Amino acid sequence: MNPHLFTQRYESLRHQVNRHFASLVTPGSPRELREACTYVLTGGGKRLRAILVLLASEAVGGTRAQALPAGAAVEIMHNFTLVHDDIMDHARTRRGKATVHVRWDLNTALLAGDTLLAVAYKQLLRTRTRDMSTLVRLFTQGVIDVCEGQALDLEYEQRNDITVADYFTMIEQKTGRLFNVATELGARIGGGSESQIRRLRTFGRYLGRAFQLQDDLLDVIGDERQFGKTIGGDILEGKRTYLLLTARERARKADRALLDRVLHRKTRRPPTRETIAQRRALVATVRDVYDVLGVIRDTRSEVLANTRQATAVLRTLPASNAREMLCWLAEKLVYRES
Amino acid sequence: MNPHLFTQRYESLRHQVNRHFASLVTPGSPRELREACTYVLTGGGKRLRAILVLLASEAVGGTRAQALPAGAAVEIMHNFTLVHDDIMDHARTRRGKATVHVRWDLNTALLAGDTLLAVAYKQLLRTRTRDMSTLVRLFTQGVIDVCEGQALDLEYEQRNDITVADYFTMIEQKTGRLFNVATELGARIGGGSESQIRRLRTFGRYLGRAFQLQDDLLDVIGDERQFGKTIGGDILEGKRTYLLLTARERARKADRALLDRVLHRKTRRPPTRETIAQRRALVATVRDVYDVLGVIRDTRSEVLANTRQATAVLRTLPASNAREMLCWLAEKLVYRES
Repeated sequence: MNPHLFTQRYESLRHQVNRHFASLVTPGSPRELREACTYVLTGGGKRLRAILVLLASEAVGGTRAQALPAGAAVEIMHNFTLVHDDIMDHARTRRGKATVHVRWDLNTALLAGDTLLAVAYKQLLRTRTRDMSTLVRLFTQGVIDVCEGQALDLEYEQRNDITVADYFTMIEQKTGRLFNVATELGARIGGGSESQIRRLRTFGRYLGRAFQLQDDLLDVIGDERQFGKTIGGDILEGKRTYLLLTARERARKADRALLDRVLHRKTRRPPTRETIAQRRALVATVRDVYDVLGVIRDTRSEVLANTRQATAVLRTLPASNAREMLCWLAEKLVYRES
Repeated sequence: MNPHLFTQRYESLRHQVNRHFASLVTPGSPRELREACTYVLTGGGKRLRAILVLLASEAVGGTRAQALPAGAAVEIMHNFTLVHDDIMDHARTRRGKATVHVRWDLNTALLAGDTLLAVAYKQLLRTRTRDMSTLVRLFTQGVIDVCEGQALDLEYEQRNDITVADYFTMIEQKTGRLFNVATELGARIGGGSESQIRRLRTFGRYLGRAFQLQDDLLDVIGDERQFGKTIGGDILEGKRTYLLLTARERARKADRALLDRVLHRKTRRPPTRETIAQRRALVATVRDVYDVLGVIRDTRSEVLANTRQATAVLRTLPASNAREMLCWLAEKLVYRES
């Protein structure tokens, strides 16, 4: 297929997921809670996790329709974590719109998250399968791991001794787990063999890692308009990204002192009087340090290496349109700018 | 059995549940999250909902061991709602100890609640059953209903036109649902017939209603030391209880104006300068109005009527120790003081 056809097919899958979400919306009482849930479900997004479930199912010979409820379940679970994470991170916008706790209030956001998690289970239960227990078990362990990953992330914010190894432990749970829950669920629902299931799970793991590393990278080298976030936001917040932690392990003297200051911005809030010019200067300086230390180049290689491992595992599956779509998706994520 | 034996048996069931909870505790990383979950799981309580699952299973010929994971699931789900509700209600203590968001912080309480909900599902999945889908579906609808009940409660706080009928709609979901989810799960796991399952679900519904009405009553007539909450707390907070709403429908002139002032305490916070003596006087006056309007007497009858309906349904089940325990439990709840 040519790239244009892949893009077209992705859009059609995304529409299928969005149509399904629109069908879940039920206005009524309690009004604010229903409105907030609708707001989240119809708020757009890549629908990447849902689409991974659909494609994984097809890649082992299943159908898309079979996997749609589970795809919705994983995507809704992802949205539950976003609503609660946004509260914890004091985030004011998400996908260019006000976050739930800003648009409504803390209580509504808390309850909307809780409700969405249950709605996710309700979707999963609509799957036609002879082994519901395994699906629900897999999904439930995913929820626990993602919560623990978020807790690790919050814990790391309070510590200045985080290593690159700690970073991988955290993103494996917080971001990565949902990717391999998605691909494993799809493979199981599609009726894949144990070996196929294992391979699609491995694919999800590498893909999740590549995705998060690319996210870290885009904060430094992305295009502000396309990325939809402020470039350098991670630096200004002292977020423990792969780039910051790797750079800090390599840096000496003045560079190291600078990176330590960045790290400390998380625990000791930076001066509020800081001007926009000062912030821009800090981001530019840190980016230069990353560059000189070879961190930007190496992050890119790391993304590429994980993507290659992901696609290499895929190549061992029988050839199919779905397999090609998954390969294209993995490569698209490497070159994505948002 | 004599009452003493019932009490003994209840305590032995409670210990069984607590031992099971203690076995779920796993220290490790992320430290604060694990600690907070352990704090909740080992924090005591009546374990009423877990025990209802065990007894409902036994009442239809099942075993207690079979129903223990589901009992734990319902009890943990209840604790998830308490952790999040305490955030929303700004509650500082629960069962005589600091609430999770006070002892740790908002983020930890939020994540602990989320994690506990997933842990509840994990427990439910340990049930040995041929029909896991039905159990998970029932449980999931319970989570949704309880969240919606809490949302209704929050919505009612902002409104001064709530009727007694609205009140019943709300408590049916917020408090009642978990009682009938408990009894229905137990009956299903115990292998009850559809008619037995229906009767135990109905029992749970009446019991839940009696329980909440008694809770409302205890706020007005309870013994502060035994109840563990400040007497008159609902009045001071302007909570929409059965007593307040019923009294307001009956009151005229000065009494009605007084009750309207109580109702408005929720939306327009009362003056902070209010002295303890002024508060005590308000509680005493409102209690007198309730008394004169016959509301205390009628709430008591309402509790009794629901308890009688609960036990009448039970009497149609085959005689068993478990059935007698459930009857005793229902009656004990009517006369409870905490």
